[in-house]
Amino acid sequence: MSARRPVIAFAMSDSVRGRVFPERVMREYAAAADIAGILTEYTSDHARSVLARVEVLVTGWGAPRIDTAALDAAPRLEAVLHAAGTVKPYLDPAVLERGVRVSSAAGANAVPVAEFAVAMIVLAGKQVLPIARHYRQVQDEFDIEASFPGLGNYGQRVGIIGASKIGRIVIGMLRAYAFEVVVYDPYLTEADAAELGVISVALDELLRTSRVVSVHAPSLPSTIDLVDAAGIASMPRGATLVNTARGEIVDQDALTRRVLAGELFAILDVTVPWILEPDHPLYTSEHALLTPHIAGSYGVELERLSGVMLDELLRISRGEPLAHEVEPELLAITA
Amino acid sequence: MSARRPVIAFAMSDSVRGRVFPERVMREYAAAADIAGILTEYTSDHARSVLARVEVLVTGWGAPRIDTAALDAAPRLEAVLHAAGTVKPYLDPAVLERGVRVSSAAGANAVPVAEFAVAMIVLAGKQVLPIARHYRQVQDEFDIEASFPGLGNYGQRVGIIGASKIGRIVIGMLRAYAFEVVVYDPYLTEADAAELGVISVALDELLRTSRVVSVHAPSLPSTIDLVDAAGIASMPRGATLVNTARGEIVDQDALTRRVLAGELFAILDVTVPWILEPDHPLYTSEHALLTPHIAGSYGVELERLSGVMLDELLRISRGEPLAHEVEPELLAITA
Repeated sequence: MSARRPVIAFAMSDSVRGRVFPERVMREYAAAADIAGILTEYTSDHARSVLARVEVLVTGWGAPRIDTAALDAAPRLEAVLHAAGTVKPYLDPAVLERGVRVSSAAGANAVPVAEFAVAMIVLAGKQVLPIARHYRQVQDEFDIEASFPGLGNYGQRVGIIGASKIGRIVIGMLRAYAFEVVVYDPYLTEADAAELGVISVALDELLRTSRVVSVHAPSLPSTIDLVDAAGIASMPRGATLVNTARGEIVDQDALTRRVLAGELFAILDVTVPWILEPDHPLYTSEHALLTPHIAGSYGVELERLSGVMLDELLRISRGEPLAHEVEPELLAITA
Repeated sequence: MSARRPVIAFAMSDSVRGRVFPERVMREYAAAADIAGILTEYTSDHARSVLARVEVLVTGWGAPRIDTAALDAAPRLEAVLHAAGTVKPYLDPAVLERGVRVSSAAGANAVPVAEFAVAMIVLAGKQVLPIARHYRQVQDEFDIEASFPGLGNYGQRVGIIGASKIGRIVIGMLRAYAFEVVVYDPYLTEADAAELGVISVALDELLRTSRVVSVHAPSLPSTIDLVDAAGIASMPRGATLVNTARGEIVDQDALTRRVLAGELFAILDVTVPWILEPDHPLYTSEHALLTPHIAGSYGVELERLSGVMLDELLRISRGEPLAHEVEPELLAITA
């Protein structure tokens, strides 16, 4: 009842704002707060006059980085609500050090990625795309089990690399299926694994024994080529690698060789480089499905991000704790 | 502790038995019961001597139909455990009338179909396959949202035709997503719909307003062409029809025309005829994905069926009620 109306400002690229904060959503923000301004930089006189008043900064993709100069210009700033994924590129560590609370929609942004990965894991276990391709070619009845041995998901082992935010959502969703889920994550304790209902294994065991492997590790110096040539070589014939994380986590050349040999399937939403060079053989391989990094929030999914941050704004109005506050110590191990 | 060991027999085609009841599973049955024999017909002297002793008949695809003559030959028969889907073709109604309990693995057989449908619904909302195809063609960056407007699953309407056994599993699984689920089923009461957490709508509204439609109605005289030409015409441009039920429920010619015009997407695990004739234009349409009726139990999924019926056998041993007993009155409205 006694909810306050915080003074807020938006900071992100114009094109992002139009997609993540359509008119209908902006009206909901205006109903909950006083909007001091909409910024794309923090240095002009206009920006500095907005920053001087702002209590809550709502940021998104393409926002200028909040450096110490911007912080100095915003003495009333108490919270940053980031309606996008990882907050790391958008903040100087000083933001957290000065006690500004930071919330991120990374969890909301993780949802469509997890949904994409789970759908691909299920289809990979059923070998749906290879069977569809074969059916298209023969245009006749064929012995499905003889042509695609080991078909099906019941009791099959799925390996999750990385109990990250997305990895944990995937693990939770996979509970609805009769998979045996194994996880590799060096930060996952036995107690965590038990709570998640998964078996924690070494990466080499995961790769050697899983029928479908889904990559959910962050991209960090320590995870480059985490799935290396030896790991790729150890994957059983007919297995599928699903990567919705970052291309550089997987030895792409080693993977490409086994995919082109028809030994593995690859479902890759990410590659190195981001868009594969024209005529890369994975484009036309019958054992690969490539998408241009679409697993994350696109189209209507973007409204989930502004919706989650609106809920955070309402929590601030009511003096409640944030639901998606970024923990400073996690910034070191998350991408 | 005082569990009895029923006298059981198996009746199904040899090839089905090898796949649904591999050696390991047969050992579990042998541990729980006395196996009187393995039958593929009910009329030979051998079959009649087995039937004379049998208390529980474990059936599967390709089993001979239990007619009154077989029933007369099996005076001790108390239960039929059908390790497959619909039991209807395998039983004379006299089986139920004589008080023989019948259990079916139709629920277990429904699971992979529901999993397939849910994966396809998610991928359809994300337009994953059309985007993958476009990416393969251009082999370059492109404006995803401009090329594929309305992309994404958040808040999108999904229409389920038929709150059947499979339809209800799909509905339950879709609760994990931020879809708005509407259902058409003439047998679904408002109270049922509320309990399922769905909105009950007329078929024309469902087709006109859903972004993805998934068919889970049984094949009955009353459901032939249930999704007729007018219904197909009313579907919004860019919508997807997923059919894992039976081809004859949908006006395939009307659907094919809109798919070939690039207005609708079709994900069809079933068609009329069962295997489309060679050179049918759906095989090569960029807006269709055809699979040869693979959504159900195949490969390792088949062990779920014998596993569920083993649990039923153990319930009989312990004198407990069956968990998947077929209700006689349901036989009329199920396929």
